[in-house]
Amino acid sequence: MKVSLGPKTIVHPHPVFLVGTYDSEDKPNLATVSWGGICCSEPPCVAVSLREATLTFHNIKKNKAFTVGIPSASQSKIADFAGVVSGRDTNKFRQAGLTALKSEKVHAPYAEEFPYSLECRLLHVLKIGLHTLFVGEIVNVLSDKEVLNAKGWPDIRKVNPILYGSRGNPSYFGMGEELGKAFHIGHELKK
Amino acid sequence: MKVSLGPKTIVHPHPVFLVGTYDSEDKPNLATVSWGGICCSEPPCVAVSLREATLTFHNIKKNKAFTVGIPSASQSKIADFAGVVSGRDTNKFRQAGLTALKSEKVHAPYAEEFPYSLECRLLHVLKIGLHTLFVGEIVNVLSDKEVLNAKGWPDIRKVNPILYGSRGNPSYFGMGEELGKAFHIGHELKK
Repeated sequence: MKVSLGPKTIVHPHPVFLVGTYDSEDKPNLATVSWGGICCSEPPCVAVSLREATLTFHNIKKNKAFTVGIPSASQSKIADFAGVVSGRDTNKFRQAGLTALKSEKVHAPYAEEFPYSLECRLLHVLKIGLHTLFVGEIVNVLSDKEVLNAKGWPDIRKVNPILYGSRGNPSYFGMGEELGKAFHIGHELKK
Repeated sequence: MKVSLGPKTIVHPHPVFLVGTYDSEDKPNLATVSWGGICCSEPPCVAVSLREATLTFHNIKKNKAFTVGIPSASQSKIADFAGVVSGRDTNKFRQAGLTALKSEKVHAPYAEEFPYSLECRLLHVLKIGLHTLFVGEIVNVLSDKEVLNAKGWPDIRKVNPILYGSRGNPSYFGMGEELGKAFHIGHELKK
């Protein structure tokens, strides 16, 4: 027997994405976004949602490009910082001690210090309500060599990413233990 | 110095959503989706992406409704199972030992055994490529009373959700320790 909670913006886990953009004077900016996720395999795409009140909203519209940086657990203070100040009056990269580098394939900056970042070319804009969803094609992934696994992918344990709890659980969390192999452990229930 | 990996569908963490729908004969179905996330605060909305080849794609188009069930770490075998078989030839609820209940507000089923589920009314359909993104307005959240925190929200530690590693890290993981308070720990960097 469930209880009805009414409409609420909650799932678990929420990601913690650091969205990198240039403003109209090509000053780099970072924004913390938990409303987002991968949304297509071919072409590889990621969605991030932003309010029109944010600088990042306008920066993406102008440049048709953004990056998505994946921070490590040790960078949770930086991830929080980029969500509590505005790029209009703060150079978040500088204030957080991050190095802003220009992406290779798109006109957007990324932080050298994050384990890896996605370079995204804007494909779609969908206004939903308070938030507008931006779909970016992932044209490249820039990664530290040290976090790659044997398959050449950023390894989740080496990246050691951050989760955001939700509005009703306003904390960041680390990742935990392996529970089982995907596309494998479920086969047992087929019998 | 980063290395370029080319285009890849990766972020960390990916969620593990169990999407509930009815087929054309009102048989309940469940699909495991890691391409998705919250996409708007007002109205509260969640996005899930599906391939046209899936039964769930057509079920959502027909009913304009779906649920998103959030499984607990102890249910990772069930979450994997719902991703490796098709609802066209398997009643996944029955085979996984789950109880399919009709939602209160929309025409879609949910599993009584998941800690909480979102009831969603289809708002937008955006074809991207191999995947199509479905935006659902969260009209209600159905939750076990036992997982609620003092604020009346499902508590992430009681829910104990599952993360999916990525195509290059094909495993499920649990959540870890609290890293710090959101909208709080970053203020230190403002000085």
